[in-house]
Amino acid sequence: MRIYGDSKSGNCLKVKWTAEFLGQPYEWIETDIMVGESRTPDFLALNPAGQVPTVILDDGRPLAQSNAIILHLAEGSELIPEDAYERARMLEWLFWEQYSHEPYVAVVRFQVKYQGKPVTEVEPRLVERGKAALQRLEDGLAASSFLVGERLSLADVALVAYTRMAEHGGFRLADYPRVQAWIGRVEQALDIQDPV
Amino acid sequence: MRIYGDSKSGNCLKVKWTAEFLGQPYEWIETDIMVGESRTPDFLALNPAGQVPTVILDDGRPLAQSNAIILHLAEGSELIPEDAYERARMLEWLFWEQYSHEPYVAVVRFQVKYQGKPVTEVEPRLVERGKAALQRLEDGLAASSFLVGERLSLADVALVAYTRMAEHGGFRLADYPRVQAWIGRVEQALDIQDPV
Repeated sequence: MRIYGDSKSGNCLKVKWTAEFLGQPYEWIETDIMVGESRTPDFLALNPAGQVPTVILDDGRPLAQSNAIILHLAEGSELIPEDAYERARMLEWLFWEQYSHEPYVAVVRFQVKYQGKPVTEVEPRLVERGKAALQRLEDGLAASSFLVGERLSLADVALVAYTRMAEHGGFRLADYPRVQAWIGRVEQALDIQDPV
Repeated sequence: MRIYGDSKSGNCLKVKWTAEFLGQPYEWIETDIMVGESRTPDFLALNPAGQVPTVILDDGRPLAQSNAIILHLAEGSELIPEDAYERARMLEWLFWEQYSHEPYVAVVRFQVKYQGKPVTEVEPRLVERGKAALQRLEDGLAASSFLVGERLSLADVALVAYTRMAEHGGFRLADYPRVQAWIGRVEQALDIQDPV
């Protein structure tokens, strides 16, 4: 499998961590979105949406969307709960991540860390919704060690990606102590070596 | 099953159409987001994210996120391809819908139709990205009748929801003839009776 990914992107790291956790060999092809490497004609032929991560599976077929990719890689593995309701709750977190977390926590981080915008100049609505997302995670971890019960699942893989980097965008993880402890648990369970 | 939904919301209609197609009985509880009915303490106890649709399954457990709900309802049905790669492509469309289509096509429609904003005053970036999403659908339908091959799947259910209403936001569906024909096919296959 080839993973076209940008190492700065939590969405791309999700795919790498899942492949490594499951012992699935891959070739990582660094694709720098800051210089348009996901918008070249060659790349658009792989993924017309021009987004990373994009993977080329072993049979040569492409697949995009980080959460769709990790669901595909992890089919039948311990990262997907066997119970139908727990699986549905995991999917709920995955869609919530892309709709209500990434567009705020990751986008604020991108503007501050990579576009050099002072935190005070970020659109307040983005910061507020990022904080609301972190608080929602804090609440979601009140009753269990991981997002879906007591076992690591793809919900944790997907949500930890940008949550562990939230301070790049000026969010204070110390305000969310359960989230902070959970980040450590997930990093350990996945054996994440990438620097924050 | 109880579906808490707002009839104005494509996200909510997806759930209704899936339940009807699969012959799963439900009670629809109209929940008007314009007057804050998804933000009351009672509602937040069902779904702390304060979003519709939220369903209460037959065993009394809640589930949120439209695409997670329809995946759960449709498990093992003809709406989910049996082939693993086709299933992954369907998931790719579902995540793309929430990240790259709904935030533009549905949000522009909401601002114009429900908040009374003239199309000319909508943030141009939203309109551009909405058009890009419609063009991506047009391209995606170049080789097949439905989004994943020749059979209706949840990808069509999810994408048709706001695409059929795109003109409310000033988008011109006549500019996307394959999309226009596909809307008709999907409406027929799902027996959609709701007015656009």
